[in-house]
Amino acid sequence: MAVHQAVLRVRTRGQGTSEITDDVAKIVAAARVRVGHVSVFCRHTSCSLVIMENADPTARRDLEAWLNRLVPENDPHFRHTLEGPDDMPSHIKMALTRTSETVPIAAGRMLLGTWQGIFVWEHRRAAHEREIVVTVMGETE
Amino acid sequence: MAVHQAVLRVRTRGQGTSEITDDVAKIVAAARVRVGHVSVFCRHTSCSLVIMENADPTARRDLEAWLNRLVPENDPHFRHTLEGPDDMPSHIKMALTRTSETVPIAAGRMLLGTWQGIFVWEHRRAAHEREIVVTVMGETE
Amino acid sequence: MAVHQAVLRVRTRGQGTSEITDDVAKIVAAARVRVGHVSVFCRHTSCSLVIMENADPTARRDLEAWLNRLVPENDPHFRHTLEGPDDMPSHIKMALTRTSETVPIAAGRMLLGTWQGIFVWEHRRAAHEREIVVTVMGETE
Repeated sequence: MAVHQAVLRVRTRGQGTSEITDDVAKIVAAARVRVGHVSVFCRHTSCSLVIMENADPTARRDLEAWLNRLVPENDPHFRHTLEGPDDMPSHIKMALTRTSETVPIAAGRMLLGTWQGIFVWEHRRAAHEREIVVTVMGETE
Repeated sequence: MAVHQAVLRVRTRGQGTSEITDDVAKIVAAARVRVGHVSVFCRHTSCSLVIMENADPTARRDLEAWLNRLVPENDPHFRHTLEGPDDMPSHIKMALTRTSETVPIAAGRMLLGTWQGIFVWEHRRAAHEREIVVTVMGETE
Repeated sequence: MAVHQAVLRVRTRGQGTSEITDDVAKIVAAARVRVGHVSVFCRHTSCSLVIMENADPTARRDLEAWLNRLVPENDPHFRHTLEGPDDMPSHIKMALTRTSETVPIAAGRMLLGTWQGIFVWEHRRAAHEREIVVTVMGETE
């Protein structure tokens, strides 16, 4: 049994999803864990994680646009608005999606489904550098 | 410390929740892990996991119907519609619920609450065979 | 490699978020795990977990109020209403947030972001005692 941990720094380009599947896969490969799981953790409260279809980009664009309609900016009920109209919607969108995901590993590789990719979802309008912690745990080769 | 992994194949009957608590419990029992946790992972982007009350079935029916009202089919904003009107709502419902869950194990059994069951939530209208990966990790007996 | 597990009993005061970051941190410190992760699990279906900003309390109040508007009580569609008008909304709010979270550990401490706190989110109107299971796993010092 072994643990291997690394921090990914992801440069987002404002609102939207950035795929990190290959980056996580490289950390998993380096860990030489044969069977186990990898936990992926987002260290922020205004961006989040989602495992989503990575084939047709319109699926992600529809998802992003739907969430923007569900949580519009400038809601007159919001009081936490110091950082701008995208501040509170970012926290809500984060809370509705995921901060941590745990993906199984078999034969040294993540057991993602055919269409699954791991994405960092930036909810702020501005670009940010985001930190994602990847912790691989399991039986080594 | 040991890892034990198995894949559950779950036959869904179209939209709705199917309980897999007993199937996961059997894998946990076979793993002979005394204390640790089990991670459950859904390998799909149009179905998801949820841990929900498993006593009164109307609670799940109300939950399912509420989510159907929140994410209706035939939203004119959707562009990702090739696979039918239930395609894009399925991805959104998946993103709002869970792809992975991690449940603690003590005395060789999952520490679920009295009313908690683990469910696969099919979001497509058609029946599907879904793959759920169960990874048990911890101290053995 | 080692596993360390403890159960937190959290007394909620009715609807709202209660921070448990320090309680989880103490369990992590006692586990003496240098690198690994901690999984936090909520044993209930009418309260949930969320990792949220813990600096400005108005951010949490805005989040709570937004979710109350999304999932109002007395929805005429609900059938699961035996325990009162806050019963079914509690289950829905739980399903939209989190039952389990997995937080990485490095140098013996949780790698939470600067503004991240771990919260139990009570969705029932009445105060409850809630059980949260904390399982620390990883390489010991």
